[in-house]
Parts: sequence; C-alpha cells; structure tokens
Amino acid sequence: MYRPEIQLIDCTVRDGGLMNKWQFDDDFVCTVYNALSAAGVDYMEIGYLSSESAFSRDEVGPWKFCAENDLQRVVGGMEKRLKLSAMADIGRIEHDDIPMKSESSLDMVRVACYVHQIDAAIDLAHHCIDKGYETTINLMAVSTVGLRDLDEGLNDLAKSRVPVIYLVDSFGAFYSEDIDVLAKKYMEQLPGKTIGIHCHNNQQLAFANTISGIIAGANYLDATLYGIGRGAGNCPLELLVSFLKNPKFKVRPLIEAIEKQILPWREKIDWGYFVPYMVTGVLNQHPRTAIAHMESEEKNKVTQFYDQMTNATEVD
Amino acid sequence: MYRPEIQLIDCTVRDGGLMNKWQFDDDFVCTVYNALSAAGVDYMEIGYLSSESAFSRDEVGPWKFCAENDLQRVVGGMEKRLKLSAMADIGRIEHDDIPMKSESSLDMVRVACYVHQIDAAIDLAHHCIDKGYETTINLMAVSTVGLRDLDEGLNDLAKSRVPVIYLVDSFGAFYSEDIDVLAKKYMEQLPGKTIGIHCHNNQQLAFANTISGIIAGANYLDATLYGIGRGAGNCPLELLVSFLKNPKFKVRPLIEAIEKQILPWREKIDWGYFVPYMVTGVLNQHPRTAIAHMESEEKNKVTQFYDQMTNATEVD
Repeated sequence: MYRPEIQLIDCTVRDGGLMNKWQFDDDFVCTVYNALSAAGVDYMEIGYLSSESAFSRDEVGPWKFCAENDLQRVVGGMEKRLKLSAMADIGRIEHDDIPMKSESSLDMVRVACYVHQIDAAIDLAHHCIDKGYETTINLMAVSTVGLRDLDEGLNDLAKSRVPVIYLVDSFGAFYSEDIDVLAKKYMEQLPGKTIGIHCHNNQQLAFANTISGIIAGANYLDATLYGIGRGAGNCPLELLVSFLKNPKFKVRPLIEAIEKQILPWREKIDWGYFVPYMVTGVLNQHPRTAIAHMESEEKNKVTQFYDQMTNATEVD
Repeated sequence: MYRPEIQLIDCTVRDGGLMNKWQFDDDFVCTVYNALSAAGVDYMEIGYLSSESAFSRDEVGPWKFCAENDLQRVVGGMEKRLKLSAMADIGRIEHDDIPMKSESSLDMVRVACYVHQIDAAIDLAHHCIDKGYETTINLMAVSTVGLRDLDEGLNDLAKSRVPVIYLVDSFGAFYSEDIDVLAKKYMEQLPGKTIGIHCHNNQQLAFANTISGIIAGANYLDATLYGIGRGAGNCPLELLVSFLKNPKFKVRPLIEAIEKQILPWREKIDWGYFVPYMVTGVLNQHPRTAIAHMESEEKNKVTQFYDQMTNATEVD
C-alpha cells in the first residue's frame, strides 16, 4: 500500500514501558531511536509526559516523564532524523509543567482520554498547540462507548483545533469489520482531520486491524518493535513496514534492533498472545485482570482465569 | 458470524505433529479428541495416512500413519461425537494401503497436493470416494502458483467428483485482500463445490485471513489449539470459535485442553510468531529454512537469517 501521507509512529518505549514501568536503560532507548531513524519511521513515542509530582522516580523509569534532560541523553548532539512524541494522560500532567516547544526536544504531544474526558483532552491539546507542538487526541476504549456518546464526542473533536484523532482499540476487542465501520465513521464525522489507528493484539488482529484502518483511510499508524506493549501488545512495526512497500521505510534496521534489544526482554516480560489476554479481548474487558494473572504464580491456570472472567461477566 | 454450513476441522495433531514428528502420546491425542467433542468441533484431523513402507516408526510417531489399531486406542469403545480425518500426501500412500471406509475409524481423507500434482490428487481422492470416504483436495502453496496454472488446476478440480476444495496459504504469505480475491475466484470457478481455507500465521494473519475466507464464502475452516502447527503455526481454534458465535461451539473445553496438553509443548517446540517465520512469510518462501534456523544454536541471530534470505532471494 503506497500512500505518501502515511506516518508511522513507533510506540515501543511508551507502550512497551507499560509492561516494565519504563525501566528501559539508555542503551535500549538509543538503539531503538537509531533503528527507527535508519528505518525511516516518522515518529518515536518515547514515553509519557507526566508531572514529577504525579509519580515517583523510585518506582517508574525516566520515560514516564520525558524530562528534557532525559531526552538529551538520547538525542543530544545528534542529527535529528525523526520526530519525538510523548503521550499525556489527563490528570497526570499540569499545564505549567509542559515546556514551550522551543525548549523541548519533543515535537508532538498525544493526549489520551476516555470519552468522558474529551473536553479536558481538547483543553490540554489546545494548550499544547499554543505552546508550539503537533498534537493528537487518542480516544481510548472505543469498544465500550455507546453510539450517542461517541457521536457527541466526535462532534466535539470535529470543532476542536486538534488535527489528528485516533481510533484506539485498547482492549483488543475489535474485528477488522468493526475497524472498517468505525474508521469510516471517524472520517465522515471529522472532516478535514487525519485519522490515526492504535490496535492491541489480544485476538492476533492488531496487524490485520491496522491494515483495515489503512484501507478505510487512516494515515497515522501506531506500531511497536516485535509488537511489544501492554498485555497482548501492539501491531508489530516490522510487519507493517513490510506491508507498506513504501521505499522510504526499511525493515532491516528494525530486525537488528529486535535482535539486540527486544529479544532479551522477551525472556523477562510476557507480552503477546496468551490465553488470559485473548479472554479479556474476546470479553471486551480491560487487560488489567489478565496482566495480574500473568504476573501471578498461576499464570498457566488459564481455565481458572476463563471461569473467573466469564462468571464475573455474567454477574455484571 | 452464524452460518450453519460452517464446519470446523481441527488440525492440532496433524499440523502440530510437523513440529515434533508426531511424537504426541496417547494421553495428548485422547485429551484433544475429547475436548474437540465437547467443544462441538466437526472434524479432528488426527494425522497423515501414509504407507508403513514410506516412513520408519523409529523416526515418526503413530499419527504419521493413522493405522486402525492406532486409531482404536483413541476412539475405541467410545461414543463417536466427531468425525476423524487424515491427510494423504501424494506419493506417500499406496492406494492398496487405504482400507475400505467400513473397516476404518476415519471418515474423511484430505489429499494435499501442489499444483503440478492435481491429476494425481484427483485420482487418489476418487479412489478414496470409491472406498466410502468423504474427501477434500488441499491445493498447497497457492501463493507461488501463476494465474494460468491456477486456472487450469481449478478447471480440472471443477470437473472432478471431489466435493471440497481448499485454499491453502502454506507459506503464510497472503494478506486478507489476497484471500478475498482468491476465495471468490475459487467460488466462481468451482460451482457447486464447498471451499475450505487453511492459513499459516507467519504474518500474524492466520485468524484474520480465515475470517476473510468466511466472508468470501468458505465453509470448511481449519484451525488448531493455540495455533500449534508448522513454523508460525495456524489459525488458533479458540479464537475462531469465539468469533463464530455459533451456539453449537464451546470455547471452554478448548481452553482446558490448551492448559493440559498444549502449554507443556510450548516449552519444548517453537511455533508461533518469530522473526525467521515472519521473514519467510513476507518473502513468500517455504518455512523450512526458518524452521532449520529456529532449531539451530543461532535461533536469536535473526538479522543474519534476514540477510541470508534476502541475498538468496536477490540471487534467485
């Protein structure tokens, strides 16, 4: 699929960090940064933008904050060949803690929100625009949003100055047909805006659903190296690059980075296709229960997990 | 997707056995059989139908042969609630070594062939029909078949008495759009026949491509528990059953069988998404080089494998 408007956003450090509290060392982050540069990827989402008061650096690594001195250790003194993005969660960052773009190595701030937080998200995104940043709003967990709420939310987003709106399958619950319907709806109700897509792999559909988004018109595509990310993980960047056939993208640097930095983490943390993640995806539930199960001593007792979740669902 | 015509064919033992030379013990095979029965799955492909002279029982397990006394250890004395299938490879089974259906626990023989073997496959399948079996022909590696050869092959198959013809993505090379185009072509050129689909997961698309096949009209669907199968494996049966929403299928017995029998094998053999399998899928190559690499001491040297394969491809 050759479409010059397509922008690739790598979320390896940001979404992968949800599995290890962003405890990637600088060598990891630098390797990923250089690999993405060499591969022609457009953006690297290097972490979250959080106020220092919101989390303790004793508990989470530097990429939960993306302070300028952290960023400088990665990009300082180098020719910058790709843009840097950070994600901002509503309530975790004070407006005053966001530096002016002219004083930051970040190029883009992506505001993540649930549907009831859209007003706050637009407010934060406008603030970032006024400080000089590119922005997106990533409306999470759409698989749980009713039609009236979604219409109202999209209507508010349509009137905002935010140029890119993301369709996010936080729970890995969607089939490709769902993505097709929703991406077309976003395109129709958000005239003049760019649509992005961010998928999770609970049902082994993150890549397929990203392709479905591309066909429906999405031009901002999220992916991660080897699919590393929360729970079942994300769309694998190396698959997406292989699919796109755009001569500006190269797959080999991504494979090198996977070998050097991702495979060692594969021994330590369990993202990818596992029965508990599949179960929460099929049930359209947040993956937190599956992640807790995978971190317990009983991670292979998958029938027990299925029974807990389906009984819980029946009671709810 | 509720469509009563849909038939599920589990290939756990047959395709999974390609990874361990069919060295599953009887407890494994019985557990899978009982789980599939409880789940409402229509067929269990329990192995290959091979002449005893074609392979040594010192090297391969009983499910490479599916002799009646092997089958009896699994289904003997039990109420039979699902049909049994075996796959026959051209040249590995003598016609005379196939028992009459009345003397066998098998219900179906699926003949696997490459495009140049279609005549031999039709001959073998007709022989099986005449002995009383249901039959299919599974035309492998269609991603490497030219348009004229495919048209000629489908034309021959259309004139045969074989009622079910499979679209097989042996190399995991197809995108869902390819499956859509090909399944529709099979439907059109094989009037009155049922279309089946068998996918491999090199690009994490086996499930998505199976759905694509369903939407295009395929009614015989292959899958395996937890996706176990050659190389990157197959469409996971538990995902397919969750998708289908047909009340005759139950997912819980499948999850139980995965816990009891498949997860232990997960520690011993490497099927699923790994970079070498992804590389052969993207390059539309047989997975044998990737399997050899994964079985070597250098399995994590994935950049080296990529370089070997892409240089080889450029030279070819």
